[in-house]
Amino acid sequence: MRQAGRYLPEYRQIREKHDFLTMCKTPELASEVTVQPIDIIKTDAAILFSDILVIPEAMGMKLDVIESKGPVFDKPIRQIEQIEKLQTENIVERLDYVMRAVKMTKEKLDGRVPLIGFSGSPWTLAAYMVEGKASKNFDIIKSFIYNEPVAAHKLLQILADSVVEYLNAKIRAGCDAVQIFDTWASILSPTDFEEFSLKYIRYICENLKTNGAPVIVFAKGANDFASLANLKCDSLSLDWTRDIGKIRAEVVGKKALQGNLDPTVLFAPKEKIRLETERVLQSFGNGSGHVFNLGHGILPKTPVENTRYFVECVKELSAKYHIEQETKARA
Amino acid sequence: MRQAGRYLPEYRQIREKHDFLTMCKTPELASEVTVQPIDIIKTDAAILFSDILVIPEAMGMKLDVIESKGPVFDKPIRQIEQIEKLQTENIVERLDYVMRAVKMTKEKLDGRVPLIGFSGSPWTLAAYMVEGKASKNFDIIKSFIYNEPVAAHKLLQILADSVVEYLNAKIRAGCDAVQIFDTWASILSPTDFEEFSLKYIRYICENLKTNGAPVIVFAKGANDFASLANLKCDSLSLDWTRDIGKIRAEVVGKKALQGNLDPTVLFAPKEKIRLETERVLQSFGNGSGHVFNLGHGILPKTPVENTRYFVECVKELSAKYHIEQETKARA
Repeated sequence: MRQAGRYLPEYRQIREKHDFLTMCKTPELASEVTVQPIDIIKTDAAILFSDILVIPEAMGMKLDVIESKGPVFDKPIRQIEQIEKLQTENIVERLDYVMRAVKMTKEKLDGRVPLIGFSGSPWTLAAYMVEGKASKNFDIIKSFIYNEPVAAHKLLQILADSVVEYLNAKIRAGCDAVQIFDTWASILSPTDFEEFSLKYIRYICENLKTNGAPVIVFAKGANDFASLANLKCDSLSLDWTRDIGKIRAEVVGKKALQGNLDPTVLFAPKEKIRLETERVLQSFGNGSGHVFNLGHGILPKTPVENTRYFVECVKELSAKYHIEQETKARA
Repeated sequence: MRQAGRYLPEYRQIREKHDFLTMCKTPELASEVTVQPIDIIKTDAAILFSDILVIPEAMGMKLDVIESKGPVFDKPIRQIEQIEKLQTENIVERLDYVMRAVKMTKEKLDGRVPLIGFSGSPWTLAAYMVEGKASKNFDIIKSFIYNEPVAAHKLLQILADSVVEYLNAKIRAGCDAVQIFDTWASILSPTDFEEFSLKYIRYICENLKTNGAPVIVFAKGANDFASLANLKCDSLSLDWTRDIGKIRAEVVGKKALQGNLDPTVLFAPKEKIRLETERVLQSFGNGSGHVFNLGHGILPKTPVENTRYFVECVKELSAKYHIEQETKARA
């Protein structure tokens, strides 16, 4: 549950005193808010407080994160010369604050739950870097890849190499699993997804030194599950518009699945939260290979009490599906 | 290609002198801009210039269409009392300006190409009416359907009945085909899509008096093609993230398919426009049942020259797929 803590009152208290990037860059603060939901909501894993755009920021692109407007780059990438000027050397050293946050979080967690680190996919990072701000139609990044494919692929490869270094460093620093978010897979045709996004996710998966840490890929809105199932990763995340049982049948044992309750269900009465949680469990069915999660990040204004109840429901209701499986296996 | 004309200079000239709703409500203007793309871009059909929100506006909800911000209702629906006050009687009379625009357009077209009329789906209309303006997460409409399901279903049924009346009147006025747009199908889980959207689209399809006019359903982002294939309609529209050939296999002869070139491809060089057009044709394969179209509305700033070239490509390249089919059939 990405950003599980971001809307806790305990988070808001800290956030009021520091801007978003300062919080990402200050290991004491990042680790503190990472651990909050473990204590308050009782999730089974922690996800590092950070942002996917720390990579382009570390490459020298000035970034403003304005909460109501989303991230804004003051000089978006529009030409190959700008790509050549990106500071890609020693990227991990410039992101050392993240590694220190990982280590500090691991100390605070003290083995209670595993810690997940994450990165944006090259395509999703490039979409932000080229659009420069929130976009409705993504016509700028699309025009860029269609009209400047050489520059686009150069940028995507630079990002892919940086993501490999970044996630490897996170694993070395102590992350127990890593997740790659391709939020803007959702705006690509199947062939463009393969050429401009999946190719680079594949490259990352094949070049990670995981040391046993599971790799989770979330290509939101991508429809080609046959190709996703062949990635060298352990798990695929699903948004809430998918029937998780149908996708399970499509990836036939190749991947664990993470998901996929609609985050807006947490605004519903408790009976609906329970019903929809059970529906996801039922759809997946018996057996292992399901990491229960929301189908996307938790939303602002989500009632904390409902989130806590949702986690309770998952823990209580999922047991049944595991027990039945064992009984079945014995029969 | 919805709104094919909206970004023509010829359209902008007229639009500068009149606000958007005035254009919808003035048959002389609506019919003029409807016909423009037929002459300039040479599409094979015209789609009536209008907006899906004319229905709630006719029910008494004050609507502002601000081009940079999208539509805004000053008093969004939040309680059942507001739903009870909607003026649903004689809805078609209050939308008589649309019927006059249809008749005037048919005269101007003079049999050159067929005219398509459209409506929003009940769910998509309700999402706008309850959110009140553009939304990122749709947490207001989702909270509404989860916490006030009785009110939500009341609203959806009122809208479904009005859409039936509205589309029947459009067909009587002369539309040669009608299309139902469910843009916000994309934000629903499979079970919520069935309960809050598809159920009402099904009702509409079953209650239309089509008089032979084809009915096209565009449930953007919906994944349950098995259910969509069983609707009493003639054609399904696909957005550009789908492989049209795979969906053709899923709906096995039950429905024609409309789509599905990525609208941003029209920002690409001509070779890419041609290549991607051919790719869609190839994916669909030989045979009838394909209405070539963009996967969504044409975007602002799309170069007119590219749009014209795209239509040429479709006409030129699609011939091959029909001829091969005939040859095959003879062999």
